[in-house]
Amino acid sequence: MTLVYEGKAKYVFSTDENEVYRIQYKDEVTAGNGAKKDIIKGKGRLNNLITSKFFEKLAESGVNSHFISRLSETEQLVRKVDIIPLEVVVRNQAAGSILNRLGLTKGQPFETPLVEFYYKSDELNDPLITEDHIKLLHIADDLEIQILKEQALTINNILIELMNKMNLLLVDFKIEFGRDHNGIILLADEISPDTCRIWDKTTHENFDKDVYRENTGSLIQTYTAFYNKLEAL
Amino acid sequence: MTLVYEGKAKYVFSTDENEVYRIQYKDEVTAGNGAKKDIIKGKGRLNNLITSKFFEKLAESGVNSHFISRLSETEQLVRKVDIIPLEVVVRNQAAGSILNRLGLTKGQPFETPLVEFYYKSDELNDPLITEDHIKLLHIADDLEIQILKEQALTINNILIELMNKMNLLLVDFKIEFGRDHNGIILLADEISPDTCRIWDKTTHENFDKDVYRENTGSLIQTYTAFYNKLEAL
Ligand SMILES: Nc1ncnc2c1ncn2[C@@H]1O[C@H](COP(=O)(O)OP(=O)(O)O)[C@@H](O)[C@H]1O
Ligand SMILES: Nc1ncnc2c1ncn2[C@@H]1O[C@H](COP(=O)(O)OP(=O)(O)O)[C@@H](O)[C@H]1O
Ligand SMILES: [Mg+2]
Ligand SMILES: [Mg+2]
Repeated sequence: MTLVYEGKAKYVFSTDENEVYRIQYKDEVTAGNGAKKDIIKGKGRLNNLITSKFFEKLAESGVNSHFISRLSETEQLVRKVDIIPLEVVVRNQAAGSILNRLGLTKGQPFETPLVEFYYKSDELNDPLITEDHIKLLHIADDLEIQILKEQALTINNILIELMNKMNLLLVDFKIEFGRDHNGIILLADEISPDTCRIWDKTTHENFDKDVYRENTGSLIQTYTAFYNKLEAL
Repeated sequence: MTLVYEGKAKYVFSTDENEVYRIQYKDEVTAGNGAKKDIIKGKGRLNNLITSKFFEKLAESGVNSHFISRLSETEQLVRKVDIIPLEVVVRNQAAGSILNRLGLTKGQPFETPLVEFYYKSDELNDPLITEDHIKLLHIADDLEIQILKEQALTINNILIELMNKMNLLLVDFKIEFGRDHNGIILLADEISPDTCRIWDKTTHENFDKDVYRENTGSLIQTYTAFYNKLEAL
């Protein structure tokens, strides 16, 4: 089992099986592309538990992902993919970077969910890119871009429904996709409070990494509270 | 004749005719959204002459614009439009802001011309936006966005052909469009060395505002040289 990649939040290991990776969730937490950085014991466990649960729920609703099974409290087995270097962001309400970009008001709902693509590149600071940029850079072709957008919107619908049952609002989230050895596009990476913006329906209290980014609460307490709600579904 | 708008490079006046504006080109020159700023005598005249010539040439090739006629060395009559708050940028080779955004090499040619949209907003610093942002902000609908892109590419082809005869390369340019009183989309604003990046075919010497932005030459000499080439066509 050799380490294939160490990212900011996870280790990726190869396994005995050719097309299978083991992902181990780390306790490291970063914000602002690494500008803020901490080790928070228990964070890896929570994101592994939450991501596993989300991928199971998505599979029940017909959305396949790289997820095979949860191995332990901090590890999961996944299908190996070639990651498409895009952060696919879906927004239902205005929050985060879009506020300053477009001059919007925090919490402003969108008539229709917005899909955005960011170029996954730490050196370039994950810039927003257009569909024409994606084609120019040969990241994906027209058909694949349409698949990514449709998949993202389908996942959004399923997650909104789940959150709704938990009395929560899904404000926005980031997902990644990859191509398996047959070139099939598969949801990959993680879905967790690190990668979603989730608000209490009435109080708008955060159930996500914003408590860490904005220093407004305990990350572990917040993620635990979220996990408990998810488990209670 | 009342002043309707004073921009960074032009005054816009109303006229006796309802749907007609008079535009007067100023000698002010700015760069970096106003960070650098100077008055350069003769600059307004050159941009008025060059823009008028470009709009005439475009009309000969079947592209209508707001341009009616040149009134004087620094003034032109134009059709009044409601400006669509987008800077429509066409790029044939990599230069300017796209280098840092996507990590490209200056001068790198694109397989196919790239069209980008920037949200025309001085407060927001003219951010790059996607077609979905344009729809979300109700700036234009799907059909209009397609018209803008097609018009931009048609204009690009015509300008490339003109530049080619002048032994020049059209690297990139910015245009603006507006809606007339019937809602018809019309090319508006200006096309000048202020809004284009133009290189000598062999030396890659600049014939555009980069000589001012980068302090590499006399703006008046550069724009005059360009105007003389254009007049000689
Ligand atoms: N199924 C998979 N196959 C291959 N790589 C994956 C898979 N799922 C996720 N990855 C990649 O593994 C890395 C996960 O680690 P992470 O700590 O999130 O990295 P990063 O700091 O690059 O975001 C990411 O680069 C992610 O794109
Ligand atoms: N035909 C037109 N009708 C109405 N407004 C126009 C027309 N052509 C250009 N404009 C607008 O007039 C202003 C021209 O002045 P300029 O100095 O370039 O302004 P800015 O600093 O806003 O770019 C711009 O806002 C431009 O969009
Ligand atoms: Mg990651
Ligand atoms: Mg202008």
